[in-house]
Amino acid sequence: MSELLGVAVLGAGHMGADHIQRIDRVVNGARVAAVADPDTERVKDAVAGIDGVSVHADATSALDAPDVQAVLIASPGPAHEEALLAAFARGLPVLCEKPMVPESAGALRVVEAEARLGRRLAQIGFMRRYDAEYQRLKSLLDSGQLGRPLMLHCTHRNVSSPAHFTTAMLVNSSVSHEIDAARWLLDQELTAVTVLRPRPTSHAPEGLLDPQLVLFETAEGALVDVEIFVNSGFGYQVRCEAVCESGSARIGDEHTMVVTTDGGAYEDVAQDYLVRFADAYDREVQTWVNATREGRVVGPSVWDGYAASAVAEAGVLAQETGGRVTVELAPRPGLYDRVNR
Amino acid sequence: MSELLGVAVLGAGHMGADHIQRIDRVVNGARVAAVADPDTERVKDAVAGIDGVSVHADATSALDAPDVQAVLIASPGPAHEEALLAAFARGLPVLCEKPMVPESAGALRVVEAEARLGRRLAQIGFMRRYDAEYQRLKSLLDSGQLGRPLMLHCTHRNVSSPAHFTTAMLVNSSVSHEIDAARWLLDQELTAVTVLRPRPTSHAPEGLLDPQLVLFETAEGALVDVEIFVNSGFGYQVRCEAVCESGSARIGDEHTMVVTTDGGAYEDVAQDYLVRFADAYDREVQTWVNATREGRVVGPSVWDGYAASAVAEAGVLAQETGGRVTVELAPRPGLYDRVNR
Amino acid sequence: MSELLGVAVLGAGHMGADHIQRIDRVVNGARVAAVADPDTERVKDAVAGIDGVSVHADATSALDAPDVQAVLIASPGPAHEEALLAAFARGLPVLCEKPMVPESAGALRVVEAEARLGRRLAQIGFMRRYDAEYQRLKSLLDSGQLGRPLMLHCTHRNVSSPAHFTTAMLVNSSVSHEIDAARWLLDQELTAVTVLRPRPTSHAPEGLLDPQLVLFETAEGALVDVEIFVNSGFGYQVRCEAVCESGSARIGDEHTMVVTTDGGAYEDVAQDYLVRFADAYDREVQTWVNATREGRVVGPSVWDGYAASAVAEAGVLAQETGGRVTVELAPRPGLYDRVNR
Amino acid sequence: MSELLGVAVLGAGHMGADHIQRIDRVVNGARVAAVADPDTERVKDAVAGIDGVSVHADATSALDAPDVQAVLIASPGPAHEEALLAAFARGLPVLCEKPMVPESAGALRVVEAEARLGRRLAQIGFMRRYDAEYQRLKSLLDSGQLGRPLMLHCTHRNVSSPAHFTTAMLVNSSVSHEIDAARWLLDQELTAVTVLRPRPTSHAPEGLLDPQLVLFETAEGALVDVEIFVNSGFGYQVRCEAVCESGSARIGDEHTMVVTTDGGAYEDVAQDYLVRFADAYDREVQTWVNATREGRVVGPSVWDGYAASAVAEAGVLAQETGGRVTVELAPRPGLYDRVNR
Repeated sequence: MSELLGVAVLGAGHMGADHIQRIDRVVNGARVAAVADPDTERVKDAVAGIDGVSVHADATSALDAPDVQAVLIASPGPAHEEALLAAFARGLPVLCEKPMVPESAGALRVVEAEARLGRRLAQIGFMRRYDAEYQRLKSLLDSGQLGRPLMLHCTHRNVSSPAHFTTAMLVNSSVSHEIDAARWLLDQELTAVTVLRPRPTSHAPEGLLDPQLVLFETAEGALVDVEIFVNSGFGYQVRCEAVCESGSARIGDEHTMVVTTDGGAYEDVAQDYLVRFADAYDREVQTWVNATREGRVVGPSVWDGYAASAVAEAGVLAQETGGRVTVELAPRPGLYDRVNR
Repeated sequence: MSELLGVAVLGAGHMGADHIQRIDRVVNGARVAAVADPDTERVKDAVAGIDGVSVHADATSALDAPDVQAVLIASPGPAHEEALLAAFARGLPVLCEKPMVPESAGALRVVEAEARLGRRLAQIGFMRRYDAEYQRLKSLLDSGQLGRPLMLHCTHRNVSSPAHFTTAMLVNSSVSHEIDAARWLLDQELTAVTVLRPRPTSHAPEGLLDPQLVLFETAEGALVDVEIFVNSGFGYQVRCEAVCESGSARIGDEHTMVVTTDGGAYEDVAQDYLVRFADAYDREVQTWVNATREGRVVGPSVWDGYAASAVAEAGVLAQETGGRVTVELAPRPGLYDRVNR
Repeated sequence: MSELLGVAVLGAGHMGADHIQRIDRVVNGARVAAVADPDTERVKDAVAGIDGVSVHADATSALDAPDVQAVLIASPGPAHEEALLAAFARGLPVLCEKPMVPESAGALRVVEAEARLGRRLAQIGFMRRYDAEYQRLKSLLDSGQLGRPLMLHCTHRNVSSPAHFTTAMLVNSSVSHEIDAARWLLDQELTAVTVLRPRPTSHAPEGLLDPQLVLFETAEGALVDVEIFVNSGFGYQVRCEAVCESGSARIGDEHTMVVTTDGGAYEDVAQDYLVRFADAYDREVQTWVNATREGRVVGPSVWDGYAASAVAEAGVLAQETGGRVTVELAPRPGLYDRVNR
Repeated sequence: MSELLGVAVLGAGHMGADHIQRIDRVVNGARVAAVADPDTERVKDAVAGIDGVSVHADATSALDAPDVQAVLIASPGPAHEEALLAAFARGLPVLCEKPMVPESAGALRVVEAEARLGRRLAQIGFMRRYDAEYQRLKSLLDSGQLGRPLMLHCTHRNVSSPAHFTTAMLVNSSVSHEIDAARWLLDQELTAVTVLRPRPTSHAPEGLLDPQLVLFETAEGALVDVEIFVNSGFGYQVRCEAVCESGSARIGDEHTMVVTTDGGAYEDVAQDYLVRFADAYDREVQTWVNATREGRVVGPSVWDGYAASAVAEAGVLAQETGGRVTVELAPRPGLYDRVNR
């Protein structure tokens, strides 16, 4: 391969700036061609030292810049729908950060738009699918070696929640990762959700009902339980155990250097998702660049983005009502014939 | 100490015979003085080679035999109530196997009888409290070092279920261990229970709804989830993770010799509860013998036996209805002022 | 069984007092019948609260006391030879603490004395053979499943050395455990020893050359390396990895409750051999009591005691010379036909 | 950054082809500009599908090709000296695969040549320094948190040795990785070496003395022991435990998904160094490309390459003689003032 893929990055905030550096310094085969953000000063900071990048205040202007062959959407969630539709209109391949579209109604319009095109253009940024441990688990489950999966036990812990984090965000921001991971690992839709709320930790901000236990039922009768605990204090831990008919498999245990000192054996626990999933982000973007240069679209689809939104909406309702809420999905267009392809 | 404690063992079946061997060959400070079982041939087999044991067809006859200073009840559950009341009538210290009394109404009568005596005579056979790992976890939780417990995640797996095992027994036989362990570890009552039933494993006998996810709420707002899976095929695994305000602690991981061969690193998983909890059974009986010789009664009380029955009954109802069932306990007599003392 | 085995304990120091408690409070089937120590006040303290024990200033007087059917030798090493010969003269079964006899010449005299009797009376206190993890490793090696053993990698660490601990004691006191364990696990004699001495830790007392790397060659060409580090500061760690033709197996990793807090996952490391090997001591004495009551003698023999002394003497010479020293053993009497039986 | 670094790759064999793919498909910021190999057909295969690469039969012709700004030497070891000197003559930055130069005399000539230039141009391919686990260990040791290192225990196992692997290659090919790793981790030279040879495994080819225990002493009195076992049968295992004054740290344990099935808990062991160290190779080349584009030279120096050769030569002599062999190094030029910088 010789020609570098010219990428327009929409959004120059934390995530956008991170992706700009990734494309410039880590990923093979691509370059940053254009960046758009209403705050053009932020764009200039983000592209300092990178040659050949055009600066835009407006997303569509960046999509129309010369040498732009693909789009990475890292703008705030509410801007995603319009950006995705604009990319579809231009036939540009897209990598869109999660949440694809915050509300499921908008997410469904994106599904319908791509379905009308009759071919996939978008890959959605569920980066856990690119984590080496998750891929190993997925591959084991797909092999059939352990038989049919019966349950997934998931743990998702953060050190502390950012300011303004709400109880609903426990489900629609944090657990949304498990929603996608469960759909992908099990290759089936989630059909109902129940949320149990223990008495909150005293380390949670006033009013935040943290932790919670979120329970999903699936189309083929499996169960998924998720401990979400965003003020655990002790680290960023993401674990998953798949219990199958002929065995179980777990990922996400602490697996680093073992230090013995002062009467104990210690292993570090990652403090941050950017540390825990650094390789996954790199692999996600590299996979997208490689596929795009070969004219293919792979990975999580807009259907996956829509389903995640719809399940999360049901989850937030289940948080509020304390009861079981069923998930209602629109009919799936044939373009997305396999749940997770 | 010099004089050996003379123990009457009621029941010479599998568990009774095991305890007879334990008292004769393992435990310090006690001897088998009398054994009762309607099948006296079975008694004779169980005491072969042990000197000075009187053989009885009838429990009360054994209690009244010379040199009997304490009673170990290992007869079938339905015989326990009468045996406990007979021991109370004679002022004999008792170790009673679980379930203390199968139905909570009978269990409550035992509580009331002992409460009328005004002093404890009975220790109930919840042997997990004597397992070294559980004791370490209990001691950590009691230390307050990790703050208030918020959730317990429990796993309870057997290789396969015995013949005639019923769906109800998943809760009232298997999960009854977690019911007691959770009450003990958290030092609070369980107040409600919900049971989720995934599509059963194809390795379960026809009609057995295995595995299940059993969810308990506690008096102080903690949550307990239990995976019960009695036809897991792969081993006897009992794990528990306590999630607290300032950290988590887990016990029950595989912890044996690591063998590396043929491309993998392997650790054995116990296949049987008698292997996994062998030391706990020994320690349970030794603790009872030691306390009895010193005129003390310690360990799980008849209130613990009653509470376990009542929670298990609510659990079976929750299995059947698919909904949340609250646990209704009688008022606790002052004799049992602390939940777990 | 009914009659309790009457045991004479020689020595009422730290180890003797510990064994007196063990026989009185833990072990099944035995009782303390007599205790001897030149300091009879110490004896009286050690047997306080135990009925029916005669107190002696002199070892032979204790051996001749009524009801004494077996002897446990826990007096200082230099007194062992005479005590063993006295027990042999009376035909009394013996459990003798290590070192059996500090110098190999004396140890050989004990071997010759028992060989003349034509039957075994003594079991030597190499308690690691009774540790559950070592037994699992031994059983795996004996099964032949991993093929012929090629190397043993051993680690032996203490928190800190007691006062007056000498460089020679690194080998003849600490590593003597690995000497016996290696002979037992591999079922072959050690034939040569080399000691490498890194620059000592600054935490060792002045003049103590700690840590060291002790290397043994065996009769069938295996290698054994031992890190001995008695001022490690961090815990009591005993690990062993057997490398075989078709796989390796390791024991002794930290295997306790995993606590996650403050950015790390922690497991406790035992601080003391009495904690790490508590069960092994109990099992050692119980095994001896059981065998003695059945008229059998099992476990480590006086030949094992002699061989350990001879290898340790070669090891101390290798420490001093910095070179390789061969081990010269006397011919083995037929009574000890298998190395480790 | 915009301009891609033009790299000449010398050698299109297994390793060369692998690096060509890495530069073309994985690494950011570089491109393959020229490739040389006496077998030009092999070159054509290796660069198929890559635009803008010139094909050469001769190394110097590749160095002189247009757009060549840096050189990656992956030709057979005997060709390295000439290639390094040619690169030095042209002032081209080099990444040279190990062994830098097979014999220490030639390696020393390279050191002298670069020292005459007065600035570093070459980075030597000791890729373990780029492995995440080794970097974590190095960083812990450098922090001083565990005090002075006293010993390194190393394990290096392969599934099976390639055809024509010799006993000498156990040291000068396999253990040469540990030689560099030990020098780097400890930041000091190795001064003497002793090799112990147990009876070989029956799985080794006739005449190959496998496994061996290789012992190094260091300039500041630390010890390094290495189990080298190239026909272990069970996997590619590279482990290292650093024992320090205030604690120990180990890396290289199996750390993957834990699968429980059929009575055991299993973790995969890597079968191949390209799997175990895949990320390290990528990081090594990326680090070199980044530094080169910034006009810097970092990582293992030609002095490190020379020292590794000299220690390996002493090791092979120690294998043959069975005794201790001291390592004699030429005086270190000031350019390489720190051992490992």
